[in-house]
Amino acid sequence: MDCSSAAAAGPDRAGTPPRGSIVPVARSDPGASAMNWNRQSPSPMPSHRYRPHTERVPVPITERRWPTRQLTEAPLWVPVDLRDGNQALAEPMDPARKRRLFEQLVAMGYKEIEVGYPSASRTDFDFVRDLATGDLVPDDVTIVVFTAARTDLVERTHESVRGLPNVVLHMYTATAPTWRSVVLGHDRKSLHRLILDAAADVARGAEGRDGVRFEFSPEVFNLTEPDYVLQVCDSLTELWDASPDRPVIHNLPATVEISTPNVYADQIEYMHRNLSRRESVILSVHPHNDRGTGVACGELAVLAGAQRVEGCLFGNGERTGNVDLVTLALNLHVQGVDPMIDFSDIDTVRRTVQYCNRIDVHPRHPYGGDLVYTAFSGTHQDAIKKGFAHHRAAAAAAGVDPDVAPWDVPYLPIDPHDVGRDYEAVIRVNSQSGKGGVAYLLQERYGVELPRALQIDFARRVQRATDDGGTEMTAAQLWKLLHDNYSHRGDLDWWAVEHVEGGDRLRVRATLGDRALDCDVTAGGPVEALTRALGESGTEVEVIDLSQQSVGTGRDAEAVTFAHCRVGEHPTWGVGLDRSVTASTLRAVLAAVSRAPSPAPA
Amino acid sequence: MDCSSAAAAGPDRAGTPPRGSIVPVARSDPGASAMNWNRQSPSPMPSHRYRPHTERVPVPITERRWPTRQLTEAPLWVPVDLRDGNQALAEPMDPARKRRLFEQLVAMGYKEIEVGYPSASRTDFDFVRDLATGDLVPDDVTIVVFTAARTDLVERTHESVRGLPNVVLHMYTATAPTWRSVVLGHDRKSLHRLILDAAADVARGAEGRDGVRFEFSPEVFNLTEPDYVLQVCDSLTELWDASPDRPVIHNLPATVEISTPNVYADQIEYMHRNLSRRESVILSVHPHNDRGTGVACGELAVLAGAQRVEGCLFGNGERTGNVDLVTLALNLHVQGVDPMIDFSDIDTVRRTVQYCNRIDVHPRHPYGGDLVYTAFSGTHQDAIKKGFAHHRAAAAAAGVDPDVAPWDVPYLPIDPHDVGRDYEAVIRVNSQSGKGGVAYLLQERYGVELPRALQIDFARRVQRATDDGGTEMTAAQLWKLLHDNYSHRGDLDWWAVEHVEGGDRLRVRATLGDRALDCDVTAGGPVEALTRALGESGTEVEVIDLSQQSVGTGRDAEAVTFAHCRVGEHPTWGVGLDRSVTASTLRAVLAAVSRAPSPAPA
Repeated sequence: MDCSSAAAAGPDRAGTPPRGSIVPVARSDPGASAMNWNRQSPSPMPSHRYRPHTERVPVPITERRWPTRQLTEAPLWVPVDLRDGNQALAEPMDPARKRRLFEQLVAMGYKEIEVGYPSASRTDFDFVRDLATGDLVPDDVTIVVFTAARTDLVERTHESVRGLPNVVLHMYTATAPTWRSVVLGHDRKSLHRLILDAAADVARGAEGRDGVRFEFSPEVFNLTEPDYVLQVCDSLTELWDASPDRPVIHNLPATVEISTPNVYADQIEYMHRNLSRRESVILSVHPHNDRGTGVACGELAVLAGAQRVEGCLFGNGERTGNVDLVTLALNLHVQGVDPMIDFSDIDTVRRTVQYCNRIDVHPRHPYGGDLVYTAFSGTHQDAIKKGFAHHRAAAAAAGVDPDVAPWDVPYLPIDPHDVGRDYEAVIRVNSQSGKGGVAYLLQERYGVELPRALQIDFARRVQRATDDGGTEMTAAQLWKLLHDNYSHRGDLDWWAVEHVEGGDRLRVRATLGDRALDCDVTAGGPVEALTRALGESGTEVEVIDLSQQSVGTGRDAEAVTFAHCRVGEHPTWGVGLDRSVTASTLRAVLAAVSRAPSPAPA
Repeated sequence: MDCSSAAAAGPDRAGTPPRGSIVPVARSDPGASAMNWNRQSPSPMPSHRYRPHTERVPVPITERRWPTRQLTEAPLWVPVDLRDGNQALAEPMDPARKRRLFEQLVAMGYKEIEVGYPSASRTDFDFVRDLATGDLVPDDVTIVVFTAARTDLVERTHESVRGLPNVVLHMYTATAPTWRSVVLGHDRKSLHRLILDAAADVARGAEGRDGVRFEFSPEVFNLTEPDYVLQVCDSLTELWDASPDRPVIHNLPATVEISTPNVYADQIEYMHRNLSRRESVILSVHPHNDRGTGVACGELAVLAGAQRVEGCLFGNGERTGNVDLVTLALNLHVQGVDPMIDFSDIDTVRRTVQYCNRIDVHPRHPYGGDLVYTAFSGTHQDAIKKGFAHHRAAAAAAGVDPDVAPWDVPYLPIDPHDVGRDYEAVIRVNSQSGKGGVAYLLQERYGVELPRALQIDFARRVQRATDDGGTEMTAAQLWKLLHDNYSHRGDLDWWAVEHVEGGDRLRVRATLGDRALDCDVTAGGPVEALTRALGESGTEVEVIDLSQQSVGTGRDAEAVTFAHCRVGEHPTWGVGLDRSVTASTLRAVLAAVSRAPSPAPA
């Protein structure tokens, strides 16, 4: 049964309203219906209870320009954490929390901040009064206060902002059909009248005051008939006598997300192209996140003509939250556009938000979550390790600090340093990891670069260990596992090398497992001498590869040596660690021999 | 300083690469540059390190059809929790967890499930073998296994799936320029050769086996040159001899989200329109969420021609996760489209996912979070309360169960019952709440509907209490607060009513604060008798409004009475609760009198 016939035949489809005339891609696709690969069955979900929003309120747009545009500058950001965010908390912020969040927002560079709904809450009223009478508000910051469209509330709002130099009075009314009929008991005309009356109150209270501007939100804009919103907004532009010097803000909220984000973009572009006195209007948006597409709505709306975005840090707000201003801003950053907001210490921002909202940021939250710069999988780790090396080399070649050099490291859309994160958590090792991650951790923590062939051999052992244990391994655990697997099984009791005629004379007293080695051999160098001594004692050893690096610096420095040997038939690895470079080498070769799978007969 | 001049003047802009030729809306907007309202300043963020992806890899599409389409049926869903999700966990799933999640996915209706990367992990290999030899896999479910393009890994993958009737072998290779040069050390041509060789291995191992299909993922598709992806995919379609009966899957991942979601849609539409033997290709997508737009990418990609979507439940996956299959499916549901997956018990799904991943679902996660059906703010609560009442009335009028009647309740995009949630958490009351929320809670919990004027009076008292306490109030706490504020201050020691000539004879012995009332009055009814008795004792009482309802049912039922009175000059409310309807009324009136602000002289 293919998908479309299943859909047609399913018992739950009976109540489905007729579809729009637009032909879906999947349906129109030639051959799709002939295929037998989509065997999904109708679910028991009562989807027939719903229908596409666009059937009820179509957007009268036939060609659109927004899909051809790209983001090239930051819109005006307006955090509404202290109003809309605060209204969504089980425990609203106390005055200390409100103040702390306000100060954080100012410090980050926000210039327009909605601080409360003073006519609806005593705490909010008092907070606005504190702002008006204290010295918390810098000269270039505008304070936004929110009010419903009712005379007494508007008056109380005016009272709250006395003395504040830069103010936006933000009046809202829900305009969508269901809200009009079920909640407010108004038709289009009487609601328009109500809005105009309240808007006149708003203007009256501000008479003679410079620095006061007006904002209107037709709440549930995205469910309202576009021509009605246009009519209401245009009448307010006129009533409030907006001009380019004192523009009105029309803020068009997706109060409840209800369609794919391209529909919201269409709605915004329609308004952008049809609002009267456009040069005297700041077109603002306020997306929510019920469908998980708040960020997309915000971005596509800006492409469609929005100049101002209201939202909350990390997406707080009723239900699924308002659009997340952190993600929106850093998405611009990754496109090469200055977000005009300082996120260089994202963890401090996050801590403040978590403290004020008493809600944690999810570990996978873009840019700010605990895990978002971390790779566990082997291929990712390998690519990141190579990408880091390439980045550092390219920066060095160009003579610039890696922290400002162009960034192009696989799987890391931004440099964690940009937001004040370090590289420590970038790669974490568990059973899903491979040689790249293992090598990266040892390199970052101990400055040791394993030879590639040893990386492969060791990664297999790491995987066995993590497969068994089921958990993550730290760099220190890996370092221990490396020694447990490759160190000399035995003792190096004493050794001496001296340059004599005919080469280097090596004397060694050591054990190899339960065998003793006591030798005195002269050869081209100590390694050759040692292998010859081992051969004379019955163990054939060929050194395939030998490499040494220092670990640590100064007096604490040690040398680590990796010896790839063939012992009898068996290729095997040994690792030697010693403050003496010579002893480190001897230990590595002895280690390889002591680790050979079946010890050669003594 | 306006936004565009700030951007041009900022010191950090020096390193910005030249812009594309596309004119942004905000820039082209007439008058925007003349306005003085956007005072944002350049940030210290090093945004010059980045540039728009579309400058590097433009999408060769000039007109697009996807913005005109809408979603009308579910794509084929492929959960990759057990592979891609598992690879992203600090503690990968143990066999018991893998099995539990697999069973959950099957129970929900998924028909194609990616279960692991058997050549890379022993746990995964063993799990696939368990599936092949046990009876966990229903006949109509296809198992997908993942492998890199390398002969030994392909062979091990073939080995893992022996005995499974329906299998997709999923081979991947990263194809983007940075990956080719920095990670893999290949140019376009040599990488293509490598892919074809491995694809031949994939085909060889499946020779003579029915029920085996092939999938290819050009990893980092969204950063790869479109013509190169097309060339590689088309060559595999041919090599694997795809037909409508045995289509190949080309899965095009946004491995790292890097652009606004419309760009991904353009990329997918380009592939949809240009892939050869299109009727033999299942076009699949695999969005990630680095920019918080994974869901949008998934939806727009389906509009653009994708037929299959890979993702994880609640968006698990490396860094910010894979696209969330829960949100995608329920977004269809809200559009009236059967998601073909059963989410009627979302909390069980969530518990399983949290157990297996050991990562919590965020309280604001769409559809599944703890807070997403909850309203705290007064206006929302008022609207929801009215919406619920309207919904129930409309369902009753139509003679249908409210659980299947068309849904259109403000602020609740879906009926919580659809996903197995109850209405208890829909409205929660704190200092941001108003009369609607308070009234709703008392009605839902105690079946009591406060008179509207009392709602207003009581909501003010609730707000004072929550403003002081700063926390939430439960229905039980509200009920107590109601009685603390409106109950009779005093005792009703004894009363009797008997019908006598001339009316009802009422005898009462009660206290009102520290006053005693002992009366014997006959009047038209007991209320009139009581007010007359009170008047005779010096307290003028006028009953403005009186209403009574039952609370509870059967033998435990009580009557609650709300009395709105004027006591002397003061309008005041009283609430009476008693198993006797008469006593309840008497108590309510006595309560109002005992609560009057300044007691009349005795």
